[in-house]
Amino acid sequence: MLGEMLENVRERHPLIHNITNYVTVNDCANMLLACGGSPIMSDDADEVEEITSICAGLNINIGTLNRRTIPAMLLAGQKANRLKHPVVLDPVGAGASALRTKTALELMEKVHFTVIRGNISEIKTLADGSGTTKGVDADVDDAVTAENVGQAVAFAKNFAAKAKAIVAITGAIDIVADVDGAYCIYNGHPMMSGITGTGCQLSALVAAYVAANPGRELDAACAAVCAMGVCGEIAHERLGEQDGNASYRNYIIDAMYRLDGGTLEGRANYEKRDA
Amino acid sequence: MLGEMLENVRERHPLIHNITNYVTVNDCANMLLACGGSPIMSDDADEVEEITSICAGLNINIGTLNRRTIPAMLLAGQKANRLKHPVVLDPVGAGASALRTKTALELMEKVHFTVIRGNISEIKTLADGSGTTKGVDADVDDAVTAENVGQAVAFAKNFAAKAKAIVAITGAIDIVADVDGAYCIYNGHPMMSGITGTGCQLSALVAAYVAANPGRELDAACAAVCAMGVCGEIAHERLGEQDGNASYRNYIIDAMYRLDGGTLEGRANYEKRDA
Amino acid sequence: MLGEMLENVRERHPLIHNITNYVTVNDCANMLLACGGSPIMSDDADEVEEITSICAGLNINIGTLNRRTIPAMLLAGQKANRLKHPVVLDPVGAGASALRTKTALELMEKVHFTVIRGNISEIKTLADGSGTTKGVDADVDDAVTAENVGQAVAFAKNFAAKAKAIVAITGAIDIVADVDGAYCIYNGHPMMSGITGTGCQLSALVAAYVAANPGRELDAACAAVCAMGVCGEIAHERLGEQDGNASYRNYIIDAMYRLDGGTLEGRANYEKRDA
Repeated sequence: MLGEMLENVRERHPLIHNITNYVTVNDCANMLLACGGSPIMSDDADEVEEITSICAGLNINIGTLNRRTIPAMLLAGQKANRLKHPVVLDPVGAGASALRTKTALELMEKVHFTVIRGNISEIKTLADGSGTTKGVDADVDDAVTAENVGQAVAFAKNFAAKAKAIVAITGAIDIVADVDGAYCIYNGHPMMSGITGTGCQLSALVAAYVAANPGRELDAACAAVCAMGVCGEIAHERLGEQDGNASYRNYIIDAMYRLDGGTLEGRANYEKRDA
Repeated sequence: MLGEMLENVRERHPLIHNITNYVTVNDCANMLLACGGSPIMSDDADEVEEITSICAGLNINIGTLNRRTIPAMLLAGQKANRLKHPVVLDPVGAGASALRTKTALELMEKVHFTVIRGNISEIKTLADGSGTTKGVDADVDDAVTAENVGQAVAFAKNFAAKAKAIVAITGAIDIVADVDGAYCIYNGHPMMSGITGTGCQLSALVAAYVAANPGRELDAACAAVCAMGVCGEIAHERLGEQDGNASYRNYIIDAMYRLDGGTLEGRANYEKRDA
Repeated sequence: MLGEMLENVRERHPLIHNITNYVTVNDCANMLLACGGSPIMSDDADEVEEITSICAGLNINIGTLNRRTIPAMLLAGQKANRLKHPVVLDPVGAGASALRTKTALELMEKVHFTVIRGNISEIKTLADGSGTTKGVDADVDDAVTAENVGQAVAFAKNFAAKAKAIVAITGAIDIVADVDGAYCIYNGHPMMSGITGTGCQLSALVAAYVAANPGRELDAACAAVCAMGVCGEIAHERLGEQDGNASYRNYIIDAMYRLDGGTLEGRANYEKRDA
């Protein structure tokens, strides 16, 4: 399954419209190219509807949110909905400010998201206001572990039902769930949190995978999360003794550029599970 | 000729004012430093005239165009014109939205550009509205090939006459033309399109080369396009089996940092030709 | 002393709020992660007070200054002052435009800065309007050298007294001074000026070091400046014959990721000195 998802991205070259933050935007663009997609970044209300019309999917990321881009996010999201394009939400820092929480909730109300991808603290904030987001990283107390993964899966499925979206909660253990089913994914490496933007890149990647695999959104989102984790592992194995987080960032994108379906199938470590 | 152009950039360290998109801005800055120039980024209407006054050239790039920066582009461009500084236009995504097309055309009407550099679809849009821009990449149907290069050269010269500018159309074959003459350049590597921002970087590079070689703008633009292509080749030869587009991006900038006049002369593959 | 400062950053993981330019923002984020801190970028007036409240320090950088973010800088700075968080100012390009000079001076008037870090031309502009900033690099005529370092230290201490801040003037020789004392730091490599953003990264680093070492701000700022210089040296030693400024950028961040207290102590080359 996963290999086919990847190959569909490489064959169909989905063009993804990104309204995203200026911190990690270059990495998102290169990650989209690495996976076989194509990026376009556009955030002005005067053009986002047109831009999203020529794309296969939309990725909305609320890092470095500002007054100018919020209306553009709504316009682009609603246009993409009308066109039945998949739309991904990355609620960066939801819970860290009222503006971010409020905007994420408003987006969820007015735009139908195909996938919402965030860390556990961000998703908890969206679900019930009880997240304890500290900055843009998940709170340690919220972390999904081997012990609480069952609870986390149940939480994810409930949130998916409420949000009418696939939810991808990423961390040491990743959960990708819709109302009916859930995948737990065990790939990745802790050092990925030592790089800015691996989450943002993953959201862009999810958009490309979902856009290239219509009708199979849950599996496609799972494949994207596995692919990112596998690339995090391959890149980590490549690290030399002088390499740190800057080289690691490059190596992860490099790994995605070279990833093929067979390698993804062989290295993906995931299971379908109920709560 | 080309080597001398390069050495003039290294000797004169032209300071280039960039009003550019936030996707590839860091790469543009590092590319300008790599070639021997110096970058300053400034996009607020309250300061762009002053900033451009202390510079040797201006590079206007309409990627991530927004309402706030359009007036700044006009002000800076007109100020640079009054100061007789060279001005480069990179019409990123012209044709992909009315805002981009309209803004590019308005800029061309109100600012005199020394060089307009884009892919064939963007330039066709500016020329006659017939381009079929899909996102920020050229449409396959528009591509310049060995078969249609004569037509493309004629098109470029016509557009140059109409726009009163040097036009640089870059792709698998690059054309740099003014009303009187044209260069075709065969350097570069297809993998360059797998990196975000090689076009943006090239536009910044063209600004530096033109600024450092006054009175020889056509040759300088040709030298910049050759330099970028040669660096794309050198960087590609350097790729290891685990390297992908992220490392390639770094290696191209590295190659420009190390490029000397002799290597550029030796590796440049170009010809002067009529339509 | 220096090693302890570094280890405090690694233990306390200070979350740093950055209102910074879009040119080097990604490098600032990765540098903060490399040193053991954590970054959050936020520049909208609607959320900056909240964001800075959950952080340990604030870093204000006026590169790519614009009308929208100036009020956010003032709000965040004043909030951080009320919370007694350390605040760093990086007056990028002060002297290059009236907007930048005026904004930097207004920020200094309305916000108490713990540390002001810039090149000598920027700091001279803030001190007495006599700097000759050309773009974002220091003017050669302003450079601190072995011959004029005594004068420069006296200047720094006077400016520190006037600004009621620690001042860090960085260049070939770095000076970190408050009204009572000064450090001169001789680490670093000239090639660091061939990369965009080493100054911006250093300002973010200073914010993390000062935030993690309360009550010892002068020493902490000195440690951060030494750490940056040492990493510039380690990264330079690592350069292969094909590497240029893009790889050097990565290697400096990598070196910071791997830097330990012992290495910093062993390689730091600084002295406490009076004018």
